[in-house]
Amino acid sequence: MKVPVVAIAGVTVAVGIEMRNCLDKLNFPVHDLRVFAHPEEEGDVINFRGTNYACEVVDENSFDSVDIALFSAGGDFSKEWAPVAAASGCVVVDNSAEFRMVPDVPLVVPEINPNSINKMLEEDGRGKNILANPNCTTILMAVPVWPLHKKFGVERAVVSTYQAASGAGLDAMRELEQQAKDWAAGVPLTQDIFGRQYIWNLFNHNSPQYLDNGYNEEEWKMIEETPKIFGGAFNVGVTCVRVPILRAHCMSINLQFQNKVSLEDVYDVLNAAPGLLVVDDRVNNKHPEPLDASGEFEILVGRVRYDQSVEQGFGVDIFIAGDQLLKGAALNAVQIAELLLEK
Amino acid sequence: MKVPVVAIAGVTVAVGIEMRNCLDKLNFPVHDLRVFAHPEEEGDVINFRGTNYACEVVDENSFDSVDIALFSAGGDFSKEWAPVAAASGCVVVDNSAEFRMVPDVPLVVPEINPNSINKMLEEDGRGKNILANPNCTTILMAVPVWPLHKKFGVERAVVSTYQAASGAGLDAMRELEQQAKDWAAGVPLTQDIFGRQYIWNLFNHNSPQYLDNGYNEEEWKMIEETPKIFGGAFNVGVTCVRVPILRAHCMSINLQFQNKVSLEDVYDVLNAAPGLLVVDDRVNNKHPEPLDASGEFEILVGRVRYDQSVEQGFGVDIFIAGDQLLKGAALNAVQIAELLLEK
Repeated sequence: MKVPVVAIAGVTVAVGIEMRNCLDKLNFPVHDLRVFAHPEEEGDVINFRGTNYACEVVDENSFDSVDIALFSAGGDFSKEWAPVAAASGCVVVDNSAEFRMVPDVPLVVPEINPNSINKMLEEDGRGKNILANPNCTTILMAVPVWPLHKKFGVERAVVSTYQAASGAGLDAMRELEQQAKDWAAGVPLTQDIFGRQYIWNLFNHNSPQYLDNGYNEEEWKMIEETPKIFGGAFNVGVTCVRVPILRAHCMSINLQFQNKVSLEDVYDVLNAAPGLLVVDDRVNNKHPEPLDASGEFEILVGRVRYDQSVEQGFGVDIFIAGDQLLKGAALNAVQIAELLLEK
Repeated sequence: MKVPVVAIAGVTVAVGIEMRNCLDKLNFPVHDLRVFAHPEEEGDVINFRGTNYACEVVDENSFDSVDIALFSAGGDFSKEWAPVAAASGCVVVDNSAEFRMVPDVPLVVPEINPNSINKMLEEDGRGKNILANPNCTTILMAVPVWPLHKKFGVERAVVSTYQAASGAGLDAMRELEQQAKDWAAGVPLTQDIFGRQYIWNLFNHNSPQYLDNGYNEEEWKMIEETPKIFGGAFNVGVTCVRVPILRAHCMSINLQFQNKVSLEDVYDVLNAAPGLLVVDDRVNNKHPEPLDASGEFEILVGRVRYDQSVEQGFGVDIFIAGDQLLKGAALNAVQIAELLLEK
């Protein structure tokens, strides 16, 4: 691919801001940048590598000269505009849930299934020119679990999440911070977004709706998306919880293996795998923490130990922390765009 | 038992304060009260049911006229003074970890193994006149899991905790609150107790030390104590995490069953079991939350659904929230004392 014209749709939201930062930090070659935002933000200036770009409102011709468009403006926007962009020959990397489970649309984590993008390039159908970024919790779980699955065969994973406010957007992060200030000032807590006290509290993930089976949408995404990324059935049970932290998600992950493993083998695999940083310092009680993961490209992984509820070696517990806005969203999208550069 | 003389050792610490409150709220009959505290608190006045009691420093004769002593002054205190009290004929209900795994000492959750106290009354040995209160996480997990285990046979439990500052004591709760105030004021965060930023963060449970197998002590307590309480082997794997909440612990609990269950059956068992309150309001996204559990005697249980990683009916996920200082400590101790009244 020639040096591409890149667009960011949703450039002023939390993930969009990080998409711009990731393009810069990864030295992603950009011939020209187009930035799309809400009508009320039209003309607002976005700086990228020393040049100012004015926010535009998207229209039918917006993507005519764009090679790669990173979408982070919500599901409704993606549903309407990704096909328009794709039809104009632009490749869309979409961060919404809209196309993830469409069969022809590759669901991509570059460390796991980079070749899945060939499908988009070779086949016709709805997915052509659209690549989907998985949900943040799915990515953050999949990156450390995949190399263990590939090596030892994971029979079953049981995951409990500790999710940050950032997953609900910038306004949600600000509301949590405001609640801390309100609490410190002894005034009633602002609770416009979550409709409840979030500081000193935790609660079931605030997905827009439940499935009839009692799962929240966030949980169901991991159950549905992981097998698509792994390219085969994968048994995962998950509980998604919102905790009062700002921008990195953590997960307690229990893995059962088909074959007996040793902790040394597990450490070897994790140390060698891309995108991970093993943090397991028992002397200083330093293990993956959300504050340490915030702003980092790597997913921190630690607390590696034998599960005591199965025969030794057939189960392992790990704990991870990863920046939800980076590897959980913007970074993964830009890494997908990097795969396109190679084509 | 005649109306007893009751003592509280550690009456000024978080659990000791709640022991006094629980005695009152449960209308526990008290002929006289003795309150023990640190030497620097000697003479400080504790009010109970309108009468003032002066804090005493414990000595060899302190328990001569005491019938039931509730201990919450730490492991070292229990190690030294529980045998002294027991030898004087006083029954000690000990909240420390010191005697929990001593074979002759009953480890008691009144909803589960009330008759275990008979052992103390009938046998000689180190445990005579000492009853142990289990660790908070063990109690809070055991109360909802036991009735399901009894009815359906739990093959394996995988638990991830979301633990409050209160488990580390009053000073820890104050430090977390102070960090919120410091953060709101934009000044450096107070971090004397946890040695790190706790607000907007979470971390591996700060047990004093690790086992060689990588477990923290908090986790190992659940693994060791649960089979003793249940009266038989019980497979439990657990990850204990400290999150920035104040006084109620939460847990994500995944259960595998020997026999196929229906969610209706699970709800029936949970609704009928003592000490639980089912909270599963999907319309309002209200499930067990630590703020709702704080100050409550019942353990909240909800998010009941089939685990998607096993054959339907052979696994269930639940989420619980329980007041760590009440059912996790003081309330359970006073309920043990109630069992003694019946003797």
